[in-house]
Amino acid sequence: MTPIPLDTLNAASAQDFVAALADIFEHSPWAAEAVASARPFGSVAALRDAMVAAVRAAGPERQRALLAAHPDLAGKAARAGDLTASSTAEQASAGLDRLSEDEYAAFHRLNDAYRGKHGIPFIVCVRRHTKASILRQFERRLASDSAAEHETALAEVFRIAALRLDQTIQAPDRLPLAGRLSTHVLDTHGGTPARGIPVTLYELGPGEARRVVATAVTNHDGRTDAPLIGGRPVPIGTYELVFTVAAYFAGRGVPLADPPFLDAVPLRFAVAEAEGHYHVPLLVTPWSFSTYRGS
Amino acid sequence: MTPIPLDTLNAASAQDFVAALADIFEHSPWAAEAVASARPFGSVAALRDAMVAAVRAAGPERQRALLAAHPDLAGKAARAGDLTASSTAEQASAGLDRLSEDEYAAFHRLNDAYRGKHGIPFIVCVRRHTKASILRQFERRLASDSAAEHETALAEVFRIAALRLDQTIQAPDRLPLAGRLSTHVLDTHGGTPARGIPVTLYELGPGEARRVVATAVTNHDGRTDAPLIGGRPVPIGTYELVFTVAAYFAGRGVPLADPPFLDAVPLRFAVAEAEGHYHVPLLVTPWSFSTYRGS
Amino acid sequence: MTPIPLDTLNAASAQDFVAALADIFEHSPWAAEAVASARPFGSVAALRDAMVAAVRAAGPERQRALLAAHPDLAGKAARAGDLTASSTAEQASAGLDRLSEDEYAAFHRLNDAYRGKHGIPFIVCVRRHTKASILRQFERRLASDSAAEHETALAEVFRIAALRLDQTIQAPDRLPLAGRLSTHVLDTHGGTPARGIPVTLYELGPGEARRVVATAVTNHDGRTDAPLIGGRPVPIGTYELVFTVAAYFAGRGVPLADPPFLDAVPLRFAVAEAEGHYHVPLLVTPWSFSTYRGS
Amino acid sequence: MTPIPLDTLNAASAQDFVAALADIFEHSPWAAEAVASARPFGSVAALRDAMVAAVRAAGPERQRALLAAHPDLAGKAARAGDLTASSTAEQASAGLDRLSEDEYAAFHRLNDAYRGKHGIPFIVCVRRHTKASILRQFERRLASDSAAEHETALAEVFRIAALRLDQTIQAPDRLPLAGRLSTHVLDTHGGTPARGIPVTLYELGPGEARRVVATAVTNHDGRTDAPLIGGRPVPIGTYELVFTVAAYFAGRGVPLADPPFLDAVPLRFAVAEAEGHYHVPLLVTPWSFSTYRGS
Repeated sequence: MTPIPLDTLNAASAQDFVAALADIFEHSPWAAEAVASARPFGSVAALRDAMVAAVRAAGPERQRALLAAHPDLAGKAARAGDLTASSTAEQASAGLDRLSEDEYAAFHRLNDAYRGKHGIPFIVCVRRHTKASILRQFERRLASDSAAEHETALAEVFRIAALRLDQTIQAPDRLPLAGRLSTHVLDTHGGTPARGIPVTLYELGPGEARRVVATAVTNHDGRTDAPLIGGRPVPIGTYELVFTVAAYFAGRGVPLADPPFLDAVPLRFAVAEAEGHYHVPLLVTPWSFSTYRGS
Repeated sequence: MTPIPLDTLNAASAQDFVAALADIFEHSPWAAEAVASARPFGSVAALRDAMVAAVRAAGPERQRALLAAHPDLAGKAARAGDLTASSTAEQASAGLDRLSEDEYAAFHRLNDAYRGKHGIPFIVCVRRHTKASILRQFERRLASDSAAEHETALAEVFRIAALRLDQTIQAPDRLPLAGRLSTHVLDTHGGTPARGIPVTLYELGPGEARRVVATAVTNHDGRTDAPLIGGRPVPIGTYELVFTVAAYFAGRGVPLADPPFLDAVPLRFAVAEAEGHYHVPLLVTPWSFSTYRGS
Repeated sequence: MTPIPLDTLNAASAQDFVAALADIFEHSPWAAEAVASARPFGSVAALRDAMVAAVRAAGPERQRALLAAHPDLAGKAARAGDLTASSTAEQASAGLDRLSEDEYAAFHRLNDAYRGKHGIPFIVCVRRHTKASILRQFERRLASDSAAEHETALAEVFRIAALRLDQTIQAPDRLPLAGRLSTHVLDTHGGTPARGIPVTLYELGPGEARRVVATAVTNHDGRTDAPLIGGRPVPIGTYELVFTVAAYFAGRGVPLADPPFLDAVPLRFAVAEAEGHYHVPLLVTPWSFSTYRGS
Repeated sequence: MTPIPLDTLNAASAQDFVAALADIFEHSPWAAEAVASARPFGSVAALRDAMVAAVRAAGPERQRALLAAHPDLAGKAARAGDLTASSTAEQASAGLDRLSEDEYAAFHRLNDAYRGKHGIPFIVCVRRHTKASILRQFERRLASDSAAEHETALAEVFRIAALRLDQTIQAPDRLPLAGRLSTHVLDTHGGTPARGIPVTLYELGPGEARRVVATAVTNHDGRTDAPLIGGRPVPIGTYELVFTVAAYFAGRGVPLADPPFLDAVPLRFAVAEAEGHYHVPLLVTPWSFSTYRGS
């Protein structure tokens, strides 16, 4: 979907404006209707603020209807293909479209329990989470009280809306929604950035599961040409960066043990702030390594 | 099996002496017979040297018969329970008694290929290896020439004999057969050894396989009460030490991210010298860690 | 002075016993007299406790006399040679016998100010301090109130007495008065302890002053054969350990920059607990190093 | 001195052109004369290359006269104020204008010995060196043979000329003459860049001498707003970066020992490539620190 310039939206008919933003809030075009007459907006941030204010002003009844309009996570509607395009893409981003039968059943149970207790579907801004952290959220929020959950659910709806706006509209500003995950390999044996090191970033599952999120090879400065994750939230969860170092040292003529003391070097860490900058470097010799959260 | 004091062996009848040491060399009591009249031995090292010299002096024919007396690794004899007690225990130490059908077939193929090319069974001192390094040895030695393999096989037989002597006899001296794998956790956030950290040592692969070799909890000095591996060779192969650190820091009142940046911290490394001392410490804060081959 | 066996003291006449311990408390043989009839003592700790209890029981008048019997630090009596042998050796241990004229004048002023405010000489267990930390103590305790200072002075007197007893008597037990300062050099370029590294330990002065406390060369295990400071308190203060590493790496055939990026590597740190164990290792390559408080 | 635009030089009369560049080569306007008719030059690099080629083409006699036109380092002409403005500034950059009498005498002896052996003054591009590395160069080149020294001296003259051109002319290009020395402080106790850390860069002398080269305070990203040395060669020599960390940790509420284990943290290292990029970061907790040559 090509982003629409903000100027175009500002100049469009009210009808076209609402049509373009009908699903910023799930199945709730009224939020766009409420702000159409406040155009023009100077920035996507101003538009977002106006839409959020409209939802805040709409009162508990309409808010509850908005919340109720959200589909279950990994629910029957998702399986049946009855989601908005945004919801479909979002749920896929966290792997909710390819659950095992056991996981599907677990989500089903949690959805029912949550809806039974709080009277609304469980809503979370999926693009900020991994499957494991969604399940953790689920359990925590199931234990929370319903008034607090109403507020939490609204806050998540606003996060979802902001990310959808950011993808839908081309504007002079970007919303501060993106985190970053980057790395850097320093060869402290040779006193130089390590070039040509293969790097794989895994997202760790629940259980033993892991899936590849990104692969790269370090450049002449020991960095990857692009961040491993950038331009979007870094999903909250646990990761492993795996660097393959023995061939690099062998290629520099360094005598190694057989098998080499270090070869595949995993660094395991968790992301807690989806909008944070996580720099996770590797300082490495054939006999030692270290890492830290850098900047 | 209770070790027999060296003095007892020195004082025994030649018949009893040979009976006690009949399988130091697999199915080859003649090695013990050859040295019975050279008693008394002042140390297990002297006895080992005498038996090795006897095998060296016995000439190619008898050596070839000795090599041929060895069972296939993970072979039919092992499956049928037809090994010496020593061989059975040795093969179990590397997990060769619990192979998958695929692995069993792979060993079968390699055994046949090796025997077909070199005319002797593939012999390796299994207690010095993991399954993965045995397979690596297998492939290398299959590519070697047969004269070199005869020598390599004898050297492995002498290693096996030494380990069997060391377990069979109680003597004033120990043969230098043992390596050591140890760790130490320093909390560089608090400037103190880290007490109460759970540690698990895994042996890795082939493939994704891993099995627990040892578990421990660090004591007040940040060490484990006993080495993770000690008093025996450290099998050549790849390992992962996994430390669980978040609960430790939380217990000291340190504010942590949610989820904590570091919790399960894996250190992956390989052992190349089965008789070496591998000290693999962890220096850790909630935001950084490092390791190195220490001493 | 050869230590006297505790048994000898237990068996001696009361007169000889008191003579031997007359100066455990400065110019105050009455503390020894008070416990002579409580002999035999099973340990030096028991003797120390008895003497401390005697001083505690002696009441404020006698305690004040005991405190008043102490010489000024770096005072006229010291210059004139009028101290007990113990006091002379103690003051020398912190370099108070070789002050510049300015330092001597500073001590003189502080002594007078302290005595003027608190009515007692400034007493500190000098063997637990460097010149710089004595001056820091001086300023803090000058600002304290006199009742607290009476208590603090007594506590210091008991520390002095314990160290004197420990040096005077040969007993089955040692008092827990000794700290330790040690190091260890790991070559994380080669994955081995670094042998043959020259190490110098400096005590840092006030200002730019520094003096050599110990020199050593690392052995095959990367350690010094003896702790840099051991068997006595580690004087509270600031230190610098300087390691010379370039010749070591050059000797192993490692290509180095000219001049080498690292050669003399200083590690500066402070000791706060005179009875603590300070292990300050160096992990080093030609291009990196790290240290930490170890154990 | 305001740099002259290259366009202005290209358009000037030959006389003005030569006047402006008369001392690019010390007291040798003929090098500028030789290239005046080759104008216009598209870049300062093209001008530099043309002047160097002119000197190369001038033959041994004129080259020797050019070398002979250089003043002694820290010599009588310098003391008498008889140097070109460029030479005066250059010698001051390495502290040669403020030598002790002993140092002055040492330079005098070396100058005489060098001139006596090689028949030319000792010439070195002073802006690329510290006093200590100039003395080291002096001794090495004194031992060299005279033909090699003629070449080495010319190469140094070309370096001097390039730096003078770079300062004299404002052009679209810069000559690749600048190195960089930078730092970065990571607080691995808190998992954050360390803001507000005072940093002092010292150049280490011969002997105990040290002088402050730069001071800075780290910003919110743990870096200094500008490189500690940038836009010019990093003089070859030994440096110490000193970071003051205890107040930073105390300000974050971290409990510290008294005195703190770490406060002034010196990192000592040497620069070997004046045009290199030296990034020397500090990773620090109250109980540990590390550094490495970064990028």
